[in-house]
Amino acid sequence: SENKQARLRSTLAMDHKQAEFSTTISVSSRGPSNLAVVKYWGKRDFDLVLPINSSLSATIHLDTLCSSTTIEANQSFQRNEMWLNGKEESFLQPRLQRCIQELLSRAQDLKNDSNIIVKKSEWKNFKLHIRSSNNFPTAAGLASSASGYASLTKCLAELFCVKEEFDGELSTIARQGSGSASRSLDGGWVKWNKGELSNGIDSFAVQIASDEYWQEIRLLILVVNTHKKKISSTSGMQTSVETSDLLKFRAEKIVKQRILEMEKAILDRNFEKFAELTMKDSNQFHAICADTFPPIYYMNDVSRRIVNFIHDQNRDRIKAAYTFDAGPNAVLFVRNDDIESILTALFEEFPPSNRNRESIISDSLSLLNVAFLKSLKCIPSSAQHNPDLPIDAIQSITVTKVGPGAEITSTHQFS
Amino acid sequence: SENKQARLRSTLAMDHKQAEFSTTISVSSRGPSNLAVVKYWGKRDFDLVLPINSSLSATIHLDTLCSSTTIEANQSFQRNEMWLNGKEESFLQPRLQRCIQELLSRAQDLKNDSNIIVKKSEWKNFKLHIRSSNNFPTAAGLASSASGYASLTKCLAELFCVKEEFDGELSTIARQGSGSASRSLDGGWVKWNKGELSNGIDSFAVQIASDEYWQEIRLLILVVNTHKKKISSTSGMQTSVETSDLLKFRAEKIVKQRILEMEKAILDRNFEKFAELTMKDSNQFHAICADTFPPIYYMNDVSRRIVNFIHDQNRDRIKAAYTFDAGPNAVLFVRNDDIESILTALFEEFPPSNRNRESIISDSLSLLNVAFLKSLKCIPSSAQHNPDLPIDAIQSITVTKVGPGAEITSTHQFS
Repeated sequence: SENKQARLRSTLAMDHKQAEFSTTISVSSRGPSNLAVVKYWGKRDFDLVLPINSSLSATIHLDTLCSSTTIEANQSFQRNEMWLNGKEESFLQPRLQRCIQELLSRAQDLKNDSNIIVKKSEWKNFKLHIRSSNNFPTAAGLASSASGYASLTKCLAELFCVKEEFDGELSTIARQGSGSASRSLDGGWVKWNKGELSNGIDSFAVQIASDEYWQEIRLLILVVNTHKKKISSTSGMQTSVETSDLLKFRAEKIVKQRILEMEKAILDRNFEKFAELTMKDSNQFHAICADTFPPIYYMNDVSRRIVNFIHDQNRDRIKAAYTFDAGPNAVLFVRNDDIESILTALFEEFPPSNRNRESIISDSLSLLNVAFLKSLKCIPSSAQHNPDLPIDAIQSITVTKVGPGAEITSTHQFS
Repeated sequence: SENKQARLRSTLAMDHKQAEFSTTISVSSRGPSNLAVVKYWGKRDFDLVLPINSSLSATIHLDTLCSSTTIEANQSFQRNEMWLNGKEESFLQPRLQRCIQELLSRAQDLKNDSNIIVKKSEWKNFKLHIRSSNNFPTAAGLASSASGYASLTKCLAELFCVKEEFDGELSTIARQGSGSASRSLDGGWVKWNKGELSNGIDSFAVQIASDEYWQEIRLLILVVNTHKKKISSTSGMQTSVETSDLLKFRAEKIVKQRILEMEKAILDRNFEKFAELTMKDSNQFHAICADTFPPIYYMNDVSRRIVNFIHDQNRDRIKAAYTFDAGPNAVLFVRNDDIESILTALFEEFPPSNRNRESIISDSLSLLNVAFLKSLKCIPSSAQHNPDLPIDAIQSITVTKVGPGAEITSTHQFS
């Protein structure tokens, strides 16, 4: 990289004009997914992606679920290009355009030592090749727009040398790509304030506690087997805003207090309170979906069985909290000390078939004890004895924890 | 019967004292079930069964679903007895006791011509043998407490010669047996006003239109196959009152207006509006259940598939409305002109197995055309091609209409 930059400097010295047309600048980033424990549902402004209520999330560790983005910029590229998971997508998507324009308008000079390599006014002449991919299956119904737009915003900001003028400014840009992306720039526990202004400048995300703050928390992502198509959250929430009377009441009267209580529960590391609020908020979000007309159902019978299972597990002591986004998959919050007992009970309640037994758990962060993992595989499979439950009702279990925010993995490279 | 009464008179003349100890008086009645289109969910007073919101229902024709009650009264019976569907039940159940006491306190003299057979002060000395049974399976999750307590109240009132002092007075008594029973004394379309007073005297039901008023309406009762146990509505609604914030909002802010609109839709015979309100209210009731903590799920994946099916059917023109009570079974409201097309589409979407094909439809009122019924049985069964759907997802379809209220089937008989 230093060699490359030395070469670049001599190239620039030799022929500034020529370099401008032949040099490709590249930057790479990763962005994490996040999981709302107080849900975002409903926009008050569709174009600016301004929500009707504040929300709060845990950033899912980057090494478990993330989007990776590489942007190459060159003034001599023939055209702008966008590739998502290896498939070309339109560069003219309004949300993508909006993020690029917002960041271009904040572009600064790219300097190397004291030389200006790209003047801020020149960035608009660059064409971009954007390549983004997710390290997790999009079909599984795990939100990828949050990680995608967080990664993209982080990457473009680095490319264009954008500096935040206030804490959270970048989140107002990621927000315009995908609302929940605003919460993925920071790691740990992140609150997205709905804001009051009509231009959206006060609708940004702030970290309330880092990923180091509450170390004992583990997340179990349970992917529920389903053939059904889901309704996109964008269209679903719009229908809810238009038709659900309960949604208005939730947004206006309930969420504000709930956010305050949730923040306190996290800062106090009060798992019981955190779990109660998380479960209640997930339930209320799905209640709003059911009150939408026509009603929207994201959870299925297996999802509901997971809910009942967790309430059974919590009978004597709160061991776990469930939350469901706009799909049938559950995410469980569990303290590290309880993860083994919850996983054991989960294997007994939802026995995987022998075919799925070896591969059902992903533990990329090595959070589980190897001996325990082996013992789990010895629980007898009794799927065939449970006529109510489809085979492999739970398709996969991903074990992870709260992690850091979006990051630059490779800064300005020249070729 | 006239012979019996003549014999009775001579017995009374011979030995008044002896007759009193040897004569059994019997009365019989039938009570219909009803289906709420604006749902009752939540009590503000548990003992008096005072609801937190008004509700509105259609009385289901007696010849389709009803409870039948026979009460025998005799001063010389050794003890009070209560038999439900052939099984002895405790006579000390508080709700049963309350209904009996309320009616006893309003008892009048039983007269025959000008003779007083039983003085009002004597009724308290009679012991009762109550036998009640339902002509529909209790396991199917079709509310039988409404028909049961309506039938019982009607029967006891007749036995004790109670006269209503105001229209709906008997419904305040049936209400104390089971809230929804208050709406089953009258036929047609019945509104239960929640009332304001703490003694409950203004929490009664009134007929807003008779069963003759809106002739084209048909009801299809779809019993959904399930092995799951249901949570009783009594305990479910209590948990909702205690834990759901949305419930309070619904009761205080939404239902009043909805009742007014529903009444108007029925009086205008405006099916589109009626259907929309019915579906929205059913959805909101289940949203409240999902917002309860722990959440209550009465609908299952088949129920939700029926909802989606109806919205598909309604795409061009509103043909049907669904409503779900505290269970997975659907009731559809359909105009007579659309019943054949809805049933045909239903058979295509939820094909019965060949085993169930002949018996799936019950049409005790002969509302369906015989040729159509035969044609329905020729739709090919493709259950095996639909992996998402359990075999015989819909177990039975009962075709009926709005009917008359509770009725006396046999007045004072003596033996």
